[in-house]
Amino acid sequence: MLSEVARNLQITIVGGSIPERLGDCLYNTCCVFGADGKLKGKHRKIHLFDIDIPGKITFKESKTLTAGRHPTIVDTDVGRIGIGICYDIRFQELAMLYAARGAHLLCYPGAFNMTTGPLHWELLQRARAADNQLFVATCSPARDSSSSYIAWGHSTLVGPFGEVIATSEHEEAIIVDEIDYSLIELRRSNLPLEKQRRGDLYRLVDVQRLNSE
Amino acid sequence: MLSEVARNLQITIVGGSIPERLGDCLYNTCCVFGADGKLKGKHRKIHLFDIDIPGKITFKESKTLTAGRHPTIVDTDVGRIGIGICYDIRFQELAMLYAARGAHLLCYPGAFNMTTGPLHWELLQRARAADNQLFVATCSPARDSSSSYIAWGHSTLVGPFGEVIATSEHEEAIIVDEIDYSLIELRRSNLPLEKQRRGDLYRLVDVQRLNSE
Repeated sequence: MLSEVARNLQITIVGGSIPERLGDCLYNTCCVFGADGKLKGKHRKIHLFDIDIPGKITFKESKTLTAGRHPTIVDTDVGRIGIGICYDIRFQELAMLYAARGAHLLCYPGAFNMTTGPLHWELLQRARAADNQLFVATCSPARDSSSSYIAWGHSTLVGPFGEVIATSEHEEAIIVDEIDYSLIELRRSNLPLEKQRRGDLYRLVDVQRLNSE
Repeated sequence: MLSEVARNLQITIVGGSIPERLGDCLYNTCCVFGADGKLKGKHRKIHLFDIDIPGKITFKESKTLTAGRHPTIVDTDVGRIGIGICYDIRFQELAMLYAARGAHLLCYPGAFNMTTGPLHWELLQRARAADNQLFVATCSPARDSSSSYIAWGHSTLVGPFGEVIATSEHEEAIIVDEIDYSLIELRRSNLPLEKQRRGDLYRLVDVQRLNSE
């Protein structure tokens, strides 16, 4: 269905996430389709959501699902996109690794809940964008208060200074806004963080990229 | 003076930052004194503030100052503290490195300005705290609108969920609040980020610690 819509409308789709069965394993998987309808990439959630805040929320995704084994960068007609699913956004290393691989935009389909949503949903998006000086887009299900897992909503687009460009409330909504990648270069010339990193003190190792070199 | 005050009041002081001359070099240096009045540690700013936002602010600290060569962790009567100065807060790697070295609290004396202050001062503090699940305290000069460099102010204390525990406006102010380190363990058991990091995909290398092993 996503492939057909992408091809018919000639658009790129980062298609949320669904359970994917592979042998005896279930993954939480996001499929990216190009404007030609072809599957451009598939991200299997790397960090499974295990949380225990007594009286608020307890959830152990790792009981059911298997974690993905690779970061996912997809080159599309609308830029180089790094994909994460929901809890993946909490791991700053993944965003740094995508930035180092040249991502312009990080897309995180996600469903934060009524505890973690107000605490961290916007903070994490803005932090990933500002720290890595790139765009971040998130898409959450709308809120269904009768569901056993109630999503926070608030799909958002953030620019490379960590500024919220567009956002939504918790109802169903469509956001249309422009992403101007020239802002990435501008912000990186304003604040040349990348040039000022201290490789003599710290280095993030991208293990799989290192091994493939 | 700081040593005397620390000893007389039996308190730990993270004493802002001042220019320090060493041979032909000038550093931007923060001194930490223990409750016995002894110098416990000295942090020389690692990342020098070079910014160029035309029409807003242009500043090149690296023209005058020399960058420090070491991260600084200080063990005090009030916990293990990682020190950064101002622009150091923009580098997520430094905070990650301090967290990995067991810091309970990151202290950043800093003077963000009227452009970067509203954009990023609170965001960066909350991000460092939430991502690393520890406390962050910042202290800024009060605002002097007649100065050539106008500080944003807003000294702040943030807890390990990224929550602002106490903050100030831009006038001179004293903030007194309690830091309960047991919250660090609580938040890390709520959300076990550290256990869920994927060392098979990424690793932050603490270069000097590695070399000293």
